[in-house]
Amino acid sequence: MQVTVWSGTTQALCAALILMVPLAAAGIALINAGLGRSRSAAHAMMGSVCVIAVAAVAYFVCGWSWQGFPGRPAHVFTLAGKEWNWIGADPFFFRGLPLDGSRGEFVAWLQMFSVGVAALAPLGAGNDRWRLGASCASTALLAGWTYPLFAHWVWGGGWLAQLGVNQGWGYGFLDAGGAGAIQAVGGVTALSIAWILGPRHGKYAADGTPAAIPGHNAVLVLFACFLTWLGWIGLNAGGSLLFIGAGPADVPLVAINTTLSAAAGALAAAGITRIRFGRPDASLSANGWTGGLVASSAACAFVTPASAALVGVIAGLLVTFSVEWLDARLGVDDPAGSISVHGVGGLWGLLALGIFARIPPGRVINGMGAGSSGQWLAQLAGIATLLGSVLPMTYWLNWLLNRFHPQRVSAEGEPHGLDLYELGAGAYPEFVIHREDFRPR
Amino acid sequence: MQVTVWSGTTQALCAALILMVPLAAAGIALINAGLGRSRSAAHAMMGSVCVIAVAAVAYFVCGWSWQGFPGRPAHVFTLAGKEWNWIGADPFFFRGLPLDGSRGEFVAWLQMFSVGVAALAPLGAGNDRWRLGASCASTALLAGWTYPLFAHWVWGGGWLAQLGVNQGWGYGFLDAGGAGAIQAVGGVTALSIAWILGPRHGKYAADGTPAAIPGHNAVLVLFACFLTWLGWIGLNAGGSLLFIGAGPADVPLVAINTTLSAAAGALAAAGITRIRFGRPDASLSANGWTGGLVASSAACAFVTPASAALVGVIAGLLVTFSVEWLDARLGVDDPAGSISVHGVGGLWGLLALGIFARIPPGRVINGMGAGSSGQWLAQLAGIATLLGSVLPMTYWLNWLLNRFHPQRVSAEGEPHGLDLYELGAGAYPEFVIHREDFRPR
Amino acid sequence: MQVTVWSGTTQALCAALILMVPLAAAGIALINAGLGRSRSAAHAMMGSVCVIAVAAVAYFVCGWSWQGFPGRPAHVFTLAGKEWNWIGADPFFFRGLPLDGSRGEFVAWLQMFSVGVAALAPLGAGNDRWRLGASCASTALLAGWTYPLFAHWVWGGGWLAQLGVNQGWGYGFLDAGGAGAIQAVGGVTALSIAWILGPRHGKYAADGTPAAIPGHNAVLVLFACFLTWLGWIGLNAGGSLLFIGAGPADVPLVAINTTLSAAAGALAAAGITRIRFGRPDASLSANGWTGGLVASSAACAFVTPASAALVGVIAGLLVTFSVEWLDARLGVDDPAGSISVHGVGGLWGLLALGIFARIPPGRVINGMGAGSSGQWLAQLAGIATLLGSVLPMTYWLNWLLNRFHPQRVSAEGEPHGLDLYELGAGAYPEFVIHREDFRPR
Repeated sequence: MQVTVWSGTTQALCAALILMVPLAAAGIALINAGLGRSRSAAHAMMGSVCVIAVAAVAYFVCGWSWQGFPGRPAHVFTLAGKEWNWIGADPFFFRGLPLDGSRGEFVAWLQMFSVGVAALAPLGAGNDRWRLGASCASTALLAGWTYPLFAHWVWGGGWLAQLGVNQGWGYGFLDAGGAGAIQAVGGVTALSIAWILGPRHGKYAADGTPAAIPGHNAVLVLFACFLTWLGWIGLNAGGSLLFIGAGPADVPLVAINTTLSAAAGALAAAGITRIRFGRPDASLSANGWTGGLVASSAACAFVTPASAALVGVIAGLLVTFSVEWLDARLGVDDPAGSISVHGVGGLWGLLALGIFARIPPGRVINGMGAGSSGQWLAQLAGIATLLGSVLPMTYWLNWLLNRFHPQRVSAEGEPHGLDLYELGAGAYPEFVIHREDFRPR
Repeated sequence: MQVTVWSGTTQALCAALILMVPLAAAGIALINAGLGRSRSAAHAMMGSVCVIAVAAVAYFVCGWSWQGFPGRPAHVFTLAGKEWNWIGADPFFFRGLPLDGSRGEFVAWLQMFSVGVAALAPLGAGNDRWRLGASCASTALLAGWTYPLFAHWVWGGGWLAQLGVNQGWGYGFLDAGGAGAIQAVGGVTALSIAWILGPRHGKYAADGTPAAIPGHNAVLVLFACFLTWLGWIGLNAGGSLLFIGAGPADVPLVAINTTLSAAAGALAAAGITRIRFGRPDASLSANGWTGGLVASSAACAFVTPASAALVGVIAGLLVTFSVEWLDARLGVDDPAGSISVHGVGGLWGLLALGIFARIPPGRVINGMGAGSSGQWLAQLAGIATLLGSVLPMTYWLNWLLNRFHPQRVSAEGEPHGLDLYELGAGAYPEFVIHREDFRPR
Repeated sequence: MQVTVWSGTTQALCAALILMVPLAAAGIALINAGLGRSRSAAHAMMGSVCVIAVAAVAYFVCGWSWQGFPGRPAHVFTLAGKEWNWIGADPFFFRGLPLDGSRGEFVAWLQMFSVGVAALAPLGAGNDRWRLGASCASTALLAGWTYPLFAHWVWGGGWLAQLGVNQGWGYGFLDAGGAGAIQAVGGVTALSIAWILGPRHGKYAADGTPAAIPGHNAVLVLFACFLTWLGWIGLNAGGSLLFIGAGPADVPLVAINTTLSAAAGALAAAGITRIRFGRPDASLSANGWTGGLVASSAACAFVTPASAALVGVIAGLLVTFSVEWLDARLGVDDPAGSISVHGVGGLWGLLALGIFARIPPGRVINGMGAGSSGQWLAQLAGIATLLGSVLPMTYWLNWLLNRFHPQRVSAEGEPHGLDLYELGAGAYPEFVIHREDFRPR
């Protein structure tokens, strides 16, 4: 049996990896701000800091309680003679947190960071029109309820993880770095927010023709790729150590796979936009890069570098088409491409594990060992849960929030930009800015 | 007795943490530049690089010699029958540095980085008017004398650390991450610099009414919050391993506490400005975030997450009021809020340790073990030393420097901006900038 | 015999260090973009992301195969009765990569990152005129052939490493952090690219007088110094663990030396420009900082802090003079100073090892132990190889590429800026930009 010992060495390595995760948050924050308008750039960054703060606090207050960790208290229901674990039952305010350097303590640390990463995805979809207070309230719901619930199902010994033991579907649902539990949860929430808010003023002409509203700072967006790169190595390798029994010797492979997937995603997006539009598109290439990272997360420790590159290529293409499809066909205005990058990329990553993963024979995960088959069924179950259960739940919660207090900035406030309207000060008060609006193409 | 072994694992973990500290420096540099004018933005960043460089060199030349480490040579005086250790006596130029992977070697590494962090605080207070050469000279005094002297008292086995053994005041003065020894030392130096330089031209009307001079780039300021976050985890957890006998199992708690304190500080600042001015203030929220980090530093390993969040809330409020008080009441022009963030936040952090810390019973620090009481006396002694001894010393040193060569840019140079006047080139030569000045509100 | 054991602790530490390397790439990318024009800023960043992506993929496809690692399959020729190892023979696509946490696996990881760092140097030399497709193709040649070949000679047990055993020249060619194998290889490629592309339109008047074309964003350039700082500690300390038998106890010294070298380089550049031109030059100081980092790479683990500072001072001076000499005397237009920083700085670092290194008596490197002499001969052999063999090879490869498809943007495209011409969108679409060109000074 090859279950990695949780030694001091692994603790130190895991800490070094978790330390990279805030760089993922920093990168997504810059992508969100850079792909928005200059007149709401300070608001976008202020929103990112507040979202990170609210997510950490909400997760501390009650999120961790619902998520928990295998072996911690949880609620169980019985169905068809099998016991299914559906929600954690830890005390609030981290009062039950083991302070012994155990896997559980490191999980709490990693999760407090990664819940913020998930909460930044909707922020990008709400660029230029989502009120600050509403984004904080929505984040509290995500970090205090939706995220930990699904994370419990995946990483807390919950029913998705039990699909192997209870149902014989491979090792149960697997997601080392959070393609589903972090990214797709963030992505479907981004979709809900974009739906509820509606498109930006001026985004669509009366006949539905979309205007291209370019991001105000491409340098920040592309610089962010370097930060997400590092952040995802932290998410993927840290998650591998904590959730799927990987050891220090697996970390270089995870880092190599993560890098190749990002690289392939960026090049695929650059190539397909070059072919289709005559010129490579910088924003979409940045989205392809991040999409490759997102897609790498589930299977990073279980695939060859060649498979990782292929997963990235497909992610880059999917993100490009999804961005266009949402923008031009579905009329969903997602300025930062969050739905495509985090949602579509994440779901593809979960599926890719079912297709490409080769789990080492001696590894035991979720109580299952060698000889497990039908992993793709467990992955499909997870995808179906995200689309059929998490998406409606997060939509409904945000719809309800919108009923109590409108999430969208007022119609007279939007043209001024969120910076002046909500914060009373612009991001770049000394720079001369073009005031004219963009026109439909 | 529970003194953590300094093992290879702890070395590796400590190295990973110290590697985060330059991100704290990077973050403060961006905050300083972003909260200054565009016409001195290159100067602010150039100043940051030079200050980091001068601090490292000065610390290498003689700083480490005065700071040292418990067990290294030091000078002692006798008072009331007790021996008090007051200054290190290591050879200059790191010639006495143990190259054996010991705690002492890691302390020298961490300190070479954190002395630069301290030296960046005054730079923010001197924004837009402090000459580059003078800021380098002032940094040499700070890094070569003031900082190591106080750090010796705290971390080098000096008299503040001996208050437990000699005086029975708790474990002696405690400051794991440098709320006092790094931040408050930087903060009181920032106060000295702001006093000596005087306010920027145009900051105060003839009747003393202050003008609001907004920072030129809010995106950089808020992005910096992500960097300071990581940097402070490095400072707090690295310092915990090196100075207060914490072990790898304490690192997740330190990281969680640091994060919660920052989050609470940012949200408190956003909330209080929302309540008082009708809109949340982005710059003050960034200052609240960093103030929360600063305040978390002393007690990070000894408090519950709930206490850490409370410390952060109070820090966020204190920073907000202190910024306003200095600006509007005392006529101290501190563009980056350095005095409030690093000075006030740091002193509050030291006090908070006396209030909230619960030191594990078996831990031995500064030669003291379980059963120590009166920790708050030691903390007050440290605060009194910072205000009564370090502040006058750093003021006097900088006053003396000012006598030899004026620290402030000439009156004809200031309106041009420090970029053109001192560096001969602007930060943004291709961008069109508003030339008009800001008016009193 | 004091060869460090490759333990779990060293793995964890090495991973934490390698994680810093992408920050070196991020920093160089910002320096390149910041020292170029605003009208090609998105292109510069897009180029950086694509170069990193292409480098990672090319290295994965075949680069690692040629580089390999001591003990892995390689081709050998016999000369004068001695066997010389000249190229690796690993399978393509990382199929021969050991997945056991061994030194070899960590080398592959580090190299996949550092090959991208090398590939960013030419990008800075080609600022504002190098076509995106051509830079990607050129990177593929660098990462798939030139870099791994030289790296095999140095780090793969190749003939430069064998100069000790076979020829009695010290320990053979030594280069812990890649002053030669990463930086100088990138630097001589930058020189080739600058030669092949020719200067930017408007850079030289008809009589050869150079115009000063200032970088468009000094804040990004100086901020980048903080990122390269961290990245180089990763390169230097990671390389020391992997290539020259250093252990965890050496890491603090490497970090201190790297920092002092950068600090001294920046201050030397600031000082010499202050003396010669009356004002310190911010761009050259940033170049001096990075030049100090580059020069520190070879000998970082084998010199005293005082020697490291001296190496940095000389690097800062060399970079400053080299930039001026190339610009004004040789008519080589290198907007980011890449040739001087990476090429000249790297060669100086290699030589500096021959001058200043004191290798611990018990250390065994490249099969050689105490009592080796003539290290400077091995270093000169490496420098001669870079100038006499790598430079012609990389020039010829890029010249050939240029014959098939011109590397330089068309004459009508250049004045529009690469952003609009090649990407169809500017970096800063909402900001008002000065349109006039710069004039010869």
